[in-house]
Amino acid sequence: MNTQSSTQEAVNTRLARIREVMQREGVDALLVPSADPHLSEYLPGYWQARQWLSGFHGSVGTLIVTASFAGLWADSRYWEQAEKELAGSTIELVKLQPGQPGPLDWLAEQAPEGGVVAVDGAVMALASARQLGERLKARSIQLLTEKDLLAQVWDDRPALPENPVYQHLPPEATVSRAEKLASLRQTLRERGADWHFIATLDDIAWLFNLRGSDVSYNPVFVSFALISQDQAILFVARSKVDEHLRYVLEVDGITLRDYAEVAPALAAIPAGASLLLDPARVTSGLLANTVNGVRLVEGLNPTTLSKSQKSTADLNHIRKVMEQDGAALCEFFAWFEAARERGEPITELTVDEQLSAARARRPGFVSLSFSTIAAFNANGAMPHYRATDESHARIEGDGLLLIDSGGQYLGGTTDITRMVPIGNPTIEQKRDCTRVLKGVIALSRARFPRGILSPLLDAIARAPIWAEQVDYGHGTGHGVGYFMNVHEGPQVIAYQAVAAAQTAMQAGMITSIEPGTYRPGEWGVRIENLVFNREVGKSAFGDFLEFETLTLCPIDTRCLLAERLTIEERDWLNGYHAQVRERLAPLLEGEALEWLQRRAAAI
Amino acid sequence: MNTQSSTQEAVNTRLARIREVMQREGVDALLVPSADPHLSEYLPGYWQARQWLSGFHGSVGTLIVTASFAGLWADSRYWEQAEKELAGSTIELVKLQPGQPGPLDWLAEQAPEGGVVAVDGAVMALASARQLGERLKARSIQLLTEKDLLAQVWDDRPALPENPVYQHLPPEATVSRAEKLASLRQTLRERGADWHFIATLDDIAWLFNLRGSDVSYNPVFVSFALISQDQAILFVARSKVDEHLRYVLEVDGITLRDYAEVAPALAAIPAGASLLLDPARVTSGLLANTVNGVRLVEGLNPTTLSKSQKSTADLNHIRKVMEQDGAALCEFFAWFEAARERGEPITELTVDEQLSAARARRPGFVSLSFSTIAAFNANGAMPHYRATDESHARIEGDGLLLIDSGGQYLGGTTDITRMVPIGNPTIEQKRDCTRVLKGVIALSRARFPRGILSPLLDAIARAPIWAEQVDYGHGTGHGVGYFMNVHEGPQVIAYQAVAAAQTAMQAGMITSIEPGTYRPGEWGVRIENLVFNREVGKSAFGDFLEFETLTLCPIDTRCLLAERLTIEERDWLNGYHAQVRERLAPLLEGEALEWLQRRAAAI
Repeated sequence: MNTQSSTQEAVNTRLARIREVMQREGVDALLVPSADPHLSEYLPGYWQARQWLSGFHGSVGTLIVTASFAGLWADSRYWEQAEKELAGSTIELVKLQPGQPGPLDWLAEQAPEGGVVAVDGAVMALASARQLGERLKARSIQLLTEKDLLAQVWDDRPALPENPVYQHLPPEATVSRAEKLASLRQTLRERGADWHFIATLDDIAWLFNLRGSDVSYNPVFVSFALISQDQAILFVARSKVDEHLRYVLEVDGITLRDYAEVAPALAAIPAGASLLLDPARVTSGLLANTVNGVRLVEGLNPTTLSKSQKSTADLNHIRKVMEQDGAALCEFFAWFEAARERGEPITELTVDEQLSAARARRPGFVSLSFSTIAAFNANGAMPHYRATDESHARIEGDGLLLIDSGGQYLGGTTDITRMVPIGNPTIEQKRDCTRVLKGVIALSRARFPRGILSPLLDAIARAPIWAEQVDYGHGTGHGVGYFMNVHEGPQVIAYQAVAAAQTAMQAGMITSIEPGTYRPGEWGVRIENLVFNREVGKSAFGDFLEFETLTLCPIDTRCLLAERLTIEERDWLNGYHAQVRERLAPLLEGEALEWLQRRAAAI
Repeated sequence: MNTQSSTQEAVNTRLARIREVMQREGVDALLVPSADPHLSEYLPGYWQARQWLSGFHGSVGTLIVTASFAGLWADSRYWEQAEKELAGSTIELVKLQPGQPGPLDWLAEQAPEGGVVAVDGAVMALASARQLGERLKARSIQLLTEKDLLAQVWDDRPALPENPVYQHLPPEATVSRAEKLASLRQTLRERGADWHFIATLDDIAWLFNLRGSDVSYNPVFVSFALISQDQAILFVARSKVDEHLRYVLEVDGITLRDYAEVAPALAAIPAGASLLLDPARVTSGLLANTVNGVRLVEGLNPTTLSKSQKSTADLNHIRKVMEQDGAALCEFFAWFEAARERGEPITELTVDEQLSAARARRPGFVSLSFSTIAAFNANGAMPHYRATDESHARIEGDGLLLIDSGGQYLGGTTDITRMVPIGNPTIEQKRDCTRVLKGVIALSRARFPRGILSPLLDAIARAPIWAEQVDYGHGTGHGVGYFMNVHEGPQVIAYQAVAAAQTAMQAGMITSIEPGTYRPGEWGVRIENLVFNREVGKSAFGDFLEFETLTLCPIDTRCLLAERLTIEERDWLNGYHAQVRERLAPLLEGEALEWLQRRAAAI
């Protein structure tokens, strides 16, 4: 019996047990989202209920269980992975597509009239719970959010993380927590809010200049925060904060309370007081603690917008980090090419090991910023592929190796994707790489009015890709933090996203540009740089922004059909490579320097 | 005393009189939108209340009057015109900008707490009235919609139009009214609606294959329609439909009732019945007639979507119309250049006369599709400029003449803008024209996934314009009807528009591509073609659409800096001109043919 089928046997047993609980509690349908009380993208094991119950390891997906049906909704990034991981279970993969009904639509339409739908309110956003509740009410269905049914069957549930919290210090921390708190309190006054409740871990870590390691790759720690004009309360497990840090925070006027005390603290906000919160970033379960008569002021967490707008001082640190990260990549690639020439066996796992080691040698390195994706040929067609000990490819023969990787450094966060030619890639593979590069270049060169809603920029990257009737299911760009989560808002360059007011492009934002092309079962292509939103200056037509490309690493021209680039595209590529040579050469020597000069040569 | 100041004296008198009425009725603020009971873009005189009360003649603008304030909100297209027309009145121009508060925001914030805001519900969309009512309620302000206060002071109000209704017949009408009604009734069944109420004049004209001339340039007639599975009631003044047409319609199962009978007909829909309507396209005043218990099914009028998707048979007629329209333009331009050489005095009004006459000579011509914009130099900086007997420019010296014009033909509707060099345009003027043309070309060449929300395509046209820190306040593209309104939905290529689901791009749509550049007091540039959404075919990545450029008329290369075009842009322009020569030459002779060959030559 292989691992896959033993996992699926466990999953089917768990499903049977949860169905018993559902029957006992009178629940017709159970919704299990990928979520925690902080609505994080990556979840501590304690909250990986959807993964535990379904056996699907992708980071995003929603499970619905009824007496006769179990379905997992996943978007196109995860279809291949989900198909593999669900094979043998009784769980059906429901392919989530833009414009198509999602899991909440399914519940609103398929749950039995007059029945009961349950979800753990502690892990469901207030906005989603409200919306689902409204829709279910139309068919007299009750939404039960008070109970965590899974707790009754999840015997081997992991513990809450206990990792220490530490400070993000100057020079890399360029704004003090006192200044950040003062600015936040100013916003609260402007918004007429007495209190502000924050559940999102990156907002909290940013606000207090603190970091942790409770979530893989994201330097955050499990906590809540409650802020007023004269109080700043941080709810965090006592064991995580040492004496010294406790003292430092107290001097800065920050009160520490235990993680579990957040519920009574919310309950203590008096009726008549006003509370600012983001209904999409706070769970309905937590909010259920507040007393009637607390007036909600709803909106984006002010820290989310502040955090996204990096300062010039931040930018200077990020530029240095990009040089270090680029140098690590050059060292890795020089090793890779030499090892291939020596005929050493290399797998996707070796790539991860060597690249991670090269990054780890760089000053200021803290951890990876996400799990490295080293994906050869068909594996590259899964945008979120991860090689495992059980299943990974050897890099041999002909084709394309996709490497998407990044690091957390004290002075910034990196995220880069490059294509590596193995043997002789086909014309079709090169055509895909060339077209994707055209998308990168088109958006990298763009200027646009300050404040434009970021989803509206996506067509600039996609136009040269659409021109050949090709498209990709993921967004073109996500925000990136400053020694913080590699995915952050509020901006998002994706035509699939809702163009909400809060997605407006502002100076100082860091965003990825990463178009791709995925041919299931064959190969995948993605090229990714991070870019900084820089002011071009005022014109008669308003304020304009442009991008400074931050990422520094050659784009392998052996994957390209150079004759398909326009003169303007070739100029951009040569200009980029000149910059890469100039800034990385001083950090490199020997084989790595030779590799840089070879791969960043003009075409 | 000049005309402007006598107008403003009348405006100030009218304001004084309406303020007396407001005081008598206990109204604190009066809202006067540019609207009629059909929520048309162009209004019959009977409903031009905002124009009458403010003296501002632009087609879109909103007036608010309080005891101490009068403000007119207008978007950037109208700022220059509004500043001129409001000068000397006590009305303040409030410049409406994307993302800035509009007139309804002003009311919600500035109207006195506990006070009364009045608007004639007969001319306010249900959706807007609901939204405004909600916002005012938060500050205990009453929204009064039952009274038309203006009726008490508007002595010389024009009568309702009495122009005859006529049929749009085959071959140009390619789908019978019976087929259209059957398809609409099918949709009603699918939506679970017993009745459908239509107030929008172009939907009604399209559905019944009827046309009229009640609104300038739009071939529609003042009416309402109420449709069920077994009834189709057209509410229209008896005098407008002759015996024969009445008979034809009755044979086709259509019941004619008087225009004023719509209110009792809505009141007769029984409680428990369901009524499909678009809350953005039906007024709250009309809906107030329905009895409690009628269930509203809300959504886009199905005819709006059907109407936007032209058939292949329609397309064939449109292509022929474009040839005729292009030939008319060539004849006009040949005359224009010859007359200029002969030294004849030419004004903006002469341009309009000669161009309109050239169109009128073409087979199938019915009327202009909007008031010709012939705007020389500084006048071109007003996107909706209209020359008048009192105020117009002579075409002389150096600069740019912008001509935006179009015709209604039995087989389609045209809308085209071209730039004409006068004397020696400056390098800056040519640079503006070149950049705008780059925008036209970028979007004209685009392919994109079927169903993409049309506002998301705007960045493709703007990217080459934004690149030089230039932008324009209007949309890049609007839908165009088939012998119907020159502006129609649901698609809109404008980053300023809300990317709603209904704006999705579908095969068969006709849209304008018309980027521009406006330098107030100096000159304006706009280049506009109409394009048809055509299927490219299926790929592994989904269904893609592309544009067929419908408009056929040379783009004057003397306005361009050819060296600033990329190779790809030059290829597009030469390819377009080859097509223009091929299709227009057979319709032309003499000077017009020579002009075509000269101005559509390859560069």
